Amino acid sequence: MAPVGSKKGILERLDAGEVVIGDGGFVFALEKRGYVKAGPWTPEAAAEHPEAVRQLHREFLRAGSNVMQTFTFYASDDKLENRGNKLTFTGQQINEAACDLAREVANEGDALVAGGVSQTPSYLSCKSEDEVKKIFKKQLDVFIKKNVDFLIAEYFEHVEEAEWAVQVLKATGKPVAATLCIGPEGDMHGVTPGECAVRLVKAGADIVGVNCHFDPMTCVKTVSMMKAGVEKAGLKAHYMTQPLAYHTPDCSCQGFIDLPEFPFALEPRILTRWEMQQYAREAYKAGIHYIGGCCGFEPYHIRAVAEELATERGILPEASQKHGMWGSGLEMHTKPWVRARARRDYWEKLKPASGRPLCPSMSSPDGWGVTKGHAELMQQKEATTAEQLRPLFEKADAKH
Amino acid sequence: MAPVGSKKGILERLDAGEVVIGDGGFVFALEKRGYVKAGPWTPEAAAEHPEAVRQLHREFLRAGSNVMQTFTFYASDDKLENRGNKLTFTGQQINEAACDLAREVANEGDALVAGGVSQTPSYLSCKSEDEVKKIFKKQLDVFIKKNVDFLIAEYFEHVEEAEWAVQVLKATGKPVAATLCIGPEGDMHGVTPGECAVRLVKAGADIVGVNCHFDPMTCVKTVSMMKAGVEKAGLKAHYMTQPLAYHTPDCSCQGFIDLPEFPFALEPRILTRWEMQQYAREAYKAGIHYIGGCCGFEPYHIRAVAEELATERGILPEASQKHGMWGSGLEMHTKPWVRARARRDYWEKLKPASGRPLCPSMSSPDGWGVTKGHAELMQQKEATTAEQLRPLFEKADAKH
Amino acid sequence: MAPVGSKKGILERLDAGEVVIGDGGFVFALEKRGYVKAGPWTPEAAAEHPEAVRQLHREFLRAGSNVMQTFTFYASDDKLENRGNKLTFTGQQINEAACDLAREVANEGDALVAGGVSQTPSYLSCKSEDEVKKIFKKQLDVFIKKNVDFLIAEYFEHVEEAEWAVQVLKATGKPVAATLCIGPEGDMHGVTPGECAVRLVKAGADIVGVNCHFDPMTCVKTVSMMKAGVEKAGLKAHYMTQPLAYHTPDCSCQGFIDLPEFPFALEPRILTRWEMQQYAREAYKAGIHYIGGCCGFEPYHIRAVAEELATERGILPEASQKHGMWGSGLEMHTKPWVRARARRDYWEKLKPASGRPLCPSMSSPDGWGVTKGHAELMQQKEATTAEQLRPLFEKADAKH
Amino acid sequence: MAPVGSKKGILERLDAGEVVIGDGGFVFALEKRGYVKAGPWTPEAAAEHPEAVRQLHREFLRAGSNVMQTFTFYASDDKLENRGNKLTFTGQQINEAACDLAREVANEGDALVAGGVSQTPSYLSCKSEDEVKKIFKKQLDVFIKKNVDFLIAEYFEHVEEAEWAVQVLKATGKPVAATLCIGPEGDMHGVTPGECAVRLVKAGADIVGVNCHFDPMTCVKTVSMMKAGVEKAGLKAHYMTQPLAYHTPDCSCQGFIDLPEFPFALEPRILTRWEMQQYAREAYKAGIHYIGGCCGFEPYHIRAVAEELATERGILPEASQKHGMWGSGLEMHTKPWVRARARRDYWEKLKPASGRPLCPSMSSPDGWGVTKGHAELMQQKEATTAEQLRPLFEKADAKH
Repeated sequence: MAPVGSKKGILERLDAGEVVIGDGGFVFALEKRGYVKAGPWTPEAAAEHPEAVRQLHREFLRAGSNVMQTFTFYASDDKLENRGNKLTFTGQQINEAACDLAREVANEGDALVAGGVSQTPSYLSCKSEDEVKKIFKKQLDVFIKKNVDFLIAEYFEHVEEAEWAVQVLKATGKPVAATLCIGPEGDMHGVTPGECAVRLVKAGADIVGVNCHFDPMTCVKTVSMMKAGVEKAGLKAHYMTQPLAYHTPDCSCQGFIDLPEFPFALEPRILTRWEMQQYAREAYKAGIHYIGGCCGFEPYHIRAVAEELATERGILPEASQKHGMWGSGLEMHTKPWVRARARRDYWEKLKPASGRPLCPSMSSPDGWGVTKGHAELMQQKEATTAEQLRPLFEKADAKH
Repeated sequence: MAPVGSKKGILERLDAGEVVIGDGGFVFALEKRGYVKAGPWTPEAAAEHPEAVRQLHREFLRAGSNVMQTFTFYASDDKLENRGNKLTFTGQQINEAACDLAREVANEGDALVAGGVSQTPSYLSCKSEDEVKKIFKKQLDVFIKKNVDFLIAEYFEHVEEAEWAVQVLKATGKPVAATLCIGPEGDMHGVTPGECAVRLVKAGADIVGVNCHFDPMTCVKTVSMMKAGVEKAGLKAHYMTQPLAYHTPDCSCQGFIDLPEFPFALEPRILTRWEMQQYAREAYKAGIHYIGGCCGFEPYHIRAVAEELATERGILPEASQKHGMWGSGLEMHTKPWVRARARRDYWEKLKPASGRPLCPSMSSPDGWGVTKGHAELMQQKEATTAEQLRPLFEKADAKH
Repeated sequence: MAPVGSKKGILERLDAGEVVIGDGGFVFALEKRGYVKAGPWTPEAAAEHPEAVRQLHREFLRAGSNVMQTFTFYASDDKLENRGNKLTFTGQQINEAACDLAREVANEGDALVAGGVSQTPSYLSCKSEDEVKKIFKKQLDVFIKKNVDFLIAEYFEHVEEAEWAVQVLKATGKPVAATLCIGPEGDMHGVTPGECAVRLVKAGADIVGVNCHFDPMTCVKTVSMMKAGVEKAGLKAHYMTQPLAYHTPDCSCQGFIDLPEFPFALEPRILTRWEMQQYAREAYKAGIHYIGGCCGFEPYHIRAVAEELATERGILPEASQKHGMWGSGLEMHTKPWVRARARRDYWEKLKPASGRPLCPSMSSPDGWGVTKGHAELMQQKEATTAEQLRPLFEKADAKH
Repeated sequence: MAPVGSKKGILERLDAGEVVIGDGGFVFALEKRGYVKAGPWTPEAAAEHPEAVRQLHREFLRAGSNVMQTFTFYASDDKLENRGNKLTFTGQQINEAACDLAREVANEGDALVAGGVSQTPSYLSCKSEDEVKKIFKKQLDVFIKKNVDFLIAEYFEHVEEAEWAVQVLKATGKPVAATLCIGPEGDMHGVTPGECAVRLVKAGADIVGVNCHFDPMTCVKTVSMMKAGVEKAGLKAHYMTQPLAYHTPDCSCQGFIDLPEFPFALEPRILTRWEMQQYAREAYKAGIHYIGGCCGFEPYHIRAVAEELATERGILPEASQKHGMWGSGLEMHTKPWVRARARRDYWEKLKPASGRPLCPSMSSPDGWGVTKGHAELMQQKEATTAEQLRPLFEKADAKH
């Protein structure tokens, strides 16, 4: 295990042409394990149930992750207080606990710690640049105190807010990555991926890309458009992608949030390990060298990325001791027709059935055509009331 | 938390009409987390990575499980040595470690410890009743030494081998549950579910039912047939079901093993939490009071069972603190059209899309029409060779 | 063209081991062409628009049909007067016109004329055996006067009514075929296919089988069960099948009537010509030598049957001049990738996409669990009123 | 019935804001009836089997068509002689017979006769403008001699060839319509729909739009783009659309030819009558007043268009005497749960199942990335040889 301090930094690795493997999304994985509540999606588990968060970090490390992202998604104070969400820990406690856990596990292997900030309800509610930046700074103070290795501004629907975040993060002198949760159609105000990327690089981001909201192939396509934009502008950057582990061919510009299945019926869309290997290959071929995941990723998905790129990285992850490449573990299966599946072309060609003959293969996305600044998106600290819900139910029903 | 020893036993609970919630399948869950190898499916993680096994036990306990099954699936010595599988721990070490972990976590809540044995390669290879029974006894010695609360004989394709297991377990004086991995068509020799159940009860089983191989609704149907058989024979028993968390409408009699997607492309078939609530309700209505899961179950699936039967059990599980019933956590979501999903009828009616328009909804199962005693199913200690695999690949390709 | 009178009769052909190809269902084909009204499904077009009926007969003849069935489905007087259906022709006029058209076209080739009767509303309304038989006799008088070559009693849901029909038809001395519209589960009172067939043979039928209600493979399976029953009873018969041209894997015992798509949204279920060739082969292998079609069959479907059995029959139909076997006509296509489809294994392996990603692959059948004798099925001469429809709409909505 | 000569011309109707209903595609409809060979797709049936062509004209007339297109698709001499296609009639005989049939049936109702030319193998083989124009002129001579009411240049993949056709047709002084077989991505050389439309109008077309190759909604979208282009250029035109009756969500720019199911396994994609009503409504709302169909359309599809626009047109077609609006004919059905389907909202909401659980909902289109001028597309008069086919089969297999 590498001694602390001796590790190469994120930019050193990327500059050297190395592949950096990210981790998966913690909120979805820990929701399934019983430690995160869908709806608020806040990360109090870092303080409340550190053993669960530590275990998930460890699984991603074993699977090949080179980055432990602090579990601080939506850990800004304004988000923690949203719509009746009650917490027994302060934002500072949560952020600090998350940093300690990430560092502890990073030290068990060849991984860096990245502190992350994400979009704020304050921006959607049209607060000023100063107010929004103050929120980022508050989280950042913890990251600096805990001395994370680099910073990530992630999950932004509007490039403007992401620029503000990058500016704040950049001031620390640490390397800065910035990822929007957009697809090929661009941000919520219609700024194209290429233009978004240029603006983020100009704001100071060393690494740009996308995370969440869309499936792997869509994200690779979007980052390719970003790369083309940056190169056309004569700028330089590294590229990253941390997509969903869900197939989303039916998404509109706002991504999987708008799918009727979000967030409690996405199961049929989960990618197989073989589809993840395809994603890793396509991302690598597109010149994207920071390859990770977001919502829906389980440790075995990250292991698939690491296995696909084992030659390029010169290493197999620890967890591959428990996995035969391309299904070769099945050579040990009792039944001969299952042993016959122990090979690459079997799994590459398979079109997996859904097992749900009464269900369709695509959905029509919801979405009421509103974004930042619209009254319906204003933040509210108190719990939503039944009176507030009724018209929403009616509006939704009328659309179906 | 209940003090050890004060807990009611499994039969005491069932006799009193209580619902007992089982746990989920450990091999599949830990495979995704990087601690179990698909193919051999052996449980050495109990000794190798106890923290990972402990964490999974804890998640099921938080989700509402009343039973911690020792992670001893396929931990018989003959299975551990199968087809080139190499282990650094002895069967005894693994079985003991598994007992300790189950007991440690059971003591953190209202759960019992169950020691489990399952079908053996020796039976498939036509070893004698004595030889097979000796294998069960070896595992049993550990369970008795570690003083588990009750015993489960599970995952048997042939009722005859299950009867032998029950006879061995029954001799200990502890309560015995027995579950076959069969569907409505009965065991691999065509013995009907009703007849199987009668034979297991006569062999000494207190609780009978099915586990693995089929989806929840198919399992409820199969156990209902067992119950009808037992009642028709004038016998008495308790009933249990621990199905897959995968939809398997296209299975033939041998279950999901034969589906082309087994075991690496089953993702689209995973049940949602709402489908699990339906399952729990149907099982309960069918008079099945021991309700758990097998392969594919994650902690949130068990929580769904516990939430559906919260009224009957008089308690919500701890993990429900992180879950709004029927999606009510979405009342806190930023986007109004997602808040509109915070209600029961929305999720009950939703037909989740697969997100895979190039894939079908059902598959044609494999299966070469052989079972116990056939040369192709004989156990082999050495690794399968390339020469042995080639004809299997060709045979499989010719069928597609 | 064969001179009238010189043709071999139906039994002569079947006794000699010849394959006899039937025609397709006229009501569905003519509904699409604008001459039959869905709902009443009555055959007044024979009198109203003889050119349209003649043209369809001719197309089936060109496609290889050896039998021209008189277009007299639902042409019994009690059916013609049902629920507000108004007609400008008498039953006798319609039946006579239908006989003339069938004979005219039969004389243009090697085809026989078959006069057909089918189930009556009188039976469902519990009229007596005498009353029901009188209805059959009235149609029969026309068939005898017009000297059809043989008789078919088809589309019966209850074997009892079919027996009555056979008894009436048999009295004429002409050969009698009898087909029920049932599947493997048997008739609406649960009489098995084997038992049904035995009763029909005993009543006097020379040829027995099924028509309508189920897809080709299901019908082949059902007739195979009939054949097994007849042989087990030590009786002798010929066998026939005239299935739907729609896939119906999701049907319950009452067939495609109960599918939510009946009758106006069945398009996605239509069989391809290649699937028809498979059907013809399977039927032939099962020992069924009278092979035709029912609702959904277009002339090209019958041609596919004739092409599949060209070797056995020693002849290709006239319409095959406009069809390359197994797609060979595509050798002439301008685009090379379409020329690459000019071969059998391409079409045999193809799994045709639905083009409907928002739709499921199966439906849940309706069906209110009622049959003969239930008040809801009583015949009514007057048009259904809005007051009568309202409770039906409400009952249906409550079930979805 | 209107006396000949008293009928309003096509432009008179469109200028007055009337809806003009086209007919459906004859080659696909007559292929199913046994009179056209798939592959060459030539219209010799007009001379060989006039009764079949006349009957189809009559069915479209009954269904509401205001235009009888002469059945002269691919009736240019160079096309008739393509790749081993042998004919017993000359091009002139076929064209003349087609004109006579169209006129005969048009005179039975309120319909006009339109003479049609379509793209030529000569253009794909890079013959000169003069040579291509000569081919159009030859067909045109017949249309002028037979005095058709107006002219249609249809089914062009390249706008340049369509311009040539329009120039030739325009010289006759008759009204000219021009439709390309393109989608939203434009013609095979990438010219956008808007630009294509402007060029066609400038070449002299009075009516512009699209036909064939894409499904109804895609065609409405494409024509809307054409209309926007024409209006932006300050020009004026009428608009028409004659789409496929097949769903093609998975098409690339070359349309349904490239789908693996073309042309023998398109059945699951056929639109229902209700989907056609939606199409008619959307086309009308988009300002498209000449609304017809192409391949896949059966008479009942055209009737659905006429029924949807009955209020706007002030008339129901004759064939609606055999059709209850929105399923009202089912009020007469024997079974009460079928009577419960006799209403608009039932059919509008229904998502019809495919009945094919082993098939996907979308396909990956073929297409070898070649168009006009490529060696693989050069015309050949002799039949394709087995030696020529082999490399095509291999190339196709390697892609799957």
